[in-house]
Amino acid sequence: MLSIRSGTVNDVPLLKTLIEEFATYERLPTVVAEEQLRQDGFGTRPKFQILIAEIDGPPAGYALFFDYYSSFQGPGIFLEDLFVRPGFRGKSVGRALLARVARIVEEANGFGIMFNVLDWNDGAIEFYRKRRHIFGRLENSLPQAKSPA
Amino acid sequence: MLSIRSGTVNDVPLLKTLIEEFATYERLPTVVAEEQLRQDGFGTRPKFQILIAEIDGPPAGYALFFDYYSSFQGPGIFLEDLFVRPGFRGKSVGRALLARVARIVEEANGFGIMFNVLDWNDGAIEFYRKRRHIFGRLENSLPQAKSPA
Repeated sequence: MLSIRSGTVNDVPLLKTLIEEFATYERLPTVVAEEQLRQDGFGTRPKFQILIAEIDGPPAGYALFFDYYSSFQGPGIFLEDLFVRPGFRGKSVGRALLARVARIVEEANGFGIMFNVLDWNDGAIEFYRKRRHIFGRLENSLPQAKSPA
Repeated sequence: MLSIRSGTVNDVPLLKTLIEEFATYERLPTVVAEEQLRQDGFGTRPKFQILIAEIDGPPAGYALFFDYYSSFQGPGIFLEDLFVRPGFRGKSVGRALLARVARIVEEANGFGIMFNVLDWNDGAIEFYRKRRHIFGRLENSLPQAKSPA
């Protein structure tokens, strides 16, 4: 069964592994060590939050996000990472993670979710376009191109 | 003389005016009232920071930004607004605001500045492309298209 939970400091080693898998998939380098993730995400003033998706125990994917602010629309969320491990695709994991983030935004009365998509990642662009309704009021939440470095 | 200073809660009425001028220029609606700007920007946990540019007193432009987090690169800044009032263009106000934001990022050892540019705003795209060197290490700090709603 698919379940989604908030990540804690105990998930930092797992988070580091998932981030590396995501970076490999996106063909981008990573420089953030476990200790920095621990400080940045789980200190006195966390710089991000994470959700972990699991299917019958094993981690299937994750979402990493933080507060966004639009001077025109007010507070929202920036969804920096949404990743489903290759072996767990086609099981609605990405949809469930995105829906959970959307619920968090709604409960905080935020205007919506901002994010970037790599311009070569047609699968991701299609994924977000299909789920445009999830973004509700956020008309700006459309797939954006971000070129790899 | 051009000067740049951090904005305070006393600048909220001015900030509201500048945001409205910016929104008119970008042809986008705004829904954020002065009271919300006061709470969101100048409460116990500010959701954004602002810089005000002045030329011999009168406000010439502003920048609004907040913390960004890249799981691949660590902390950075998201530059949400950079606006120079029409009567003050061609006086290096935008360049000075951007340079000040870049210095803040560098002093915090951040990886760089993220931002969006409206896809029809050729002047802004050209402005950022020309100043790509300001972004230093941030290879991802390239102009991004954002369509108006």
